[in-house]
Amino acid sequence: MSLIKDKFSAYIDNLQDEICTEIEKVDGKASFREDNWDRDGGGGGRTRVIEKGGVFEKGGVNISRVWGELPEPIQKHFNVDQGWFWAGGLSLVLHPENPIVPTVHANFRYFELYDDEEMEHRVDGWFGGGADLTPYYLFDEDARHFHRTLKAACDKHGSELYPEFKKECDEYFYNSHRGESRGVGGLFFDYRRADEKKTLEDWYQFTTDVGSSFIESYKPIAEKRKSEGYTSEERYWQEIRRGRYVEFNLVHDRGTLFGLKTNGRIESILMSLPPRVRWDYDHHPEKGTREAELVDVLRNPKEWV
Amino acid sequence: MSLIKDKFSAYIDNLQDEICTEIEKVDGKASFREDNWDRDGGGGGRTRVIEKGGVFEKGGVNISRVWGELPEPIQKHFNVDQGWFWAGGLSLVLHPENPIVPTVHANFRYFELYDDEEMEHRVDGWFGGGADLTPYYLFDEDARHFHRTLKAACDKHGSELYPEFKKECDEYFYNSHRGESRGVGGLFFDYRRADEKKTLEDWYQFTTDVGSSFIESYKPIAEKRKSEGYTSEERYWQEIRRGRYVEFNLVHDRGTLFGLKTNGRIESILMSLPPRVRWDYDHHPEKGTREAELVDVLRNPKEWV
Repeated sequence: MSLIKDKFSAYIDNLQDEICTEIEKVDGKASFREDNWDRDGGGGGRTRVIEKGGVFEKGGVNISRVWGELPEPIQKHFNVDQGWFWAGGLSLVLHPENPIVPTVHANFRYFELYDDEEMEHRVDGWFGGGADLTPYYLFDEDARHFHRTLKAACDKHGSELYPEFKKECDEYFYNSHRGESRGVGGLFFDYRRADEKKTLEDWYQFTTDVGSSFIESYKPIAEKRKSEGYTSEERYWQEIRRGRYVEFNLVHDRGTLFGLKTNGRIESILMSLPPRVRWDYDHHPEKGTREAELVDVLRNPKEWV
Repeated sequence: MSLIKDKFSAYIDNLQDEICTEIEKVDGKASFREDNWDRDGGGGGRTRVIEKGGVFEKGGVNISRVWGELPEPIQKHFNVDQGWFWAGGLSLVLHPENPIVPTVHANFRYFELYDDEEMEHRVDGWFGGGADLTPYYLFDEDARHFHRTLKAACDKHGSELYPEFKKECDEYFYNSHRGESRGVGGLFFDYRRADEKKTLEDWYQFTTDVGSSFIESYKPIAEKRKSEGYTSEERYWQEIRRGRYVEFNLVHDRGTLFGLKTNGRIESILMSLPPRVRWDYDHHPEKGTREAELVDVLRNPKEWV
């Protein structure tokens, strides 16, 4: 048994509790409902979903710990004939009803590969994850707060990390068919293995420090914006933008497509999709509006810190 | 210049006019708006969109004729280093507001490949297309009418065609991640080249006969159902099902993904997405309801003729 795997498993367990508790406080009305599920072949997960709340129209904070023989698509991906794996992670998406409150996504995960069925001989192990913010209306101070909080967590592990993972986030959460970022970014990192600079334990510390900063990165924004009024036109714009969110998740997101193609638990994967969405033909905001200002930043990602 | 290419080009031109005229008659309120667009590299299209009509909440009947050097992703697909192409087609999707009226999709297309820039030496040519129906509430008589009309068009060209293309349709319009068909099917055919049984001219006749039967396959259904009343619960169910339509188009539909990855005109490609959509977590209709009856047929495709 790997110490890191066990520590990370316990970590995401606690983090899910902590985040759900804080999100329920922000919401003030709804509670998370819990679905436990098992995976054929090994492991399972604990999905927690909030719907039709006081602040959150739909959201999920899910953990999963799955293991067993590598599914064929993953074997191909890693170019191996046979193998066993363990993967654990926390994944969350929160879609507020109020268009003034931004949507947020975060994910923290650890993967181990073995060449024996007993999963005793680890041949590889890596961390991945990140957090990113998707506003419908831009408040520079909110984007700055989000990035600044994540940067502080990164900086403890080296000043080079935030700029690198901020850039990776802008590149990853990108709707190339629209020429637009999904939101104002945050952090994205993947395949963080032991290397000349950091041990796997260092990456564990890094990933969990970022994970533990999530609530501080998002909660103050949601608290500040949740009571602001909004118009039906602002809600309309939010639903249009949510369409872009769906487009990213279904067309480009590796995690979603991977889950759909490896027979993951569909409802836990697609809990990320927003509750109500609109697609109008050829919808563009008028120049000089706040809606156009958002699109401009999505087309030209900024440095927020 | 190829005679078939020119004939087909004129055919889709007329078919677009004919279908738009008939759909406006069914709608009774809205008109199609037209967008002409050019493609960098050669050709362009005529997109016609109807929105917020008396019957159709959103729909498009588009034609395009594009040509030039093969884009790199298509070169890879056909395993060639260089090549030139001509592609023309009509593509339509109609999303009624009333959940009692089914959504319909159809597409008729022709593709030519050349080994010379002057596009004089054709090395390949094929037809593809089909039509399929996506009801929110099942009326056996409507599904039978739709299939019977398409079958009649097929049967003129051989009794083996309808069963083959009906089956291909069930296989193609399939949300594998849900274990459900998108709708009650219709026809799907692709890569119909000159072979030992049929010339390319025969496939032209086949494709245009099917295309010309589209109005007869759908219009009587829309006319019959458009005045039926519906509840907000039925509308809710339609919006949930529209989510599945989006999932198919963005995750599985080769045409959509191809368009997004080859820099097609985004708004013309994504006009297929429904106007208002819902994703609830783990939504299932109750046993014994009409909603459950639909899902049952989507999980177990039927023979309608």
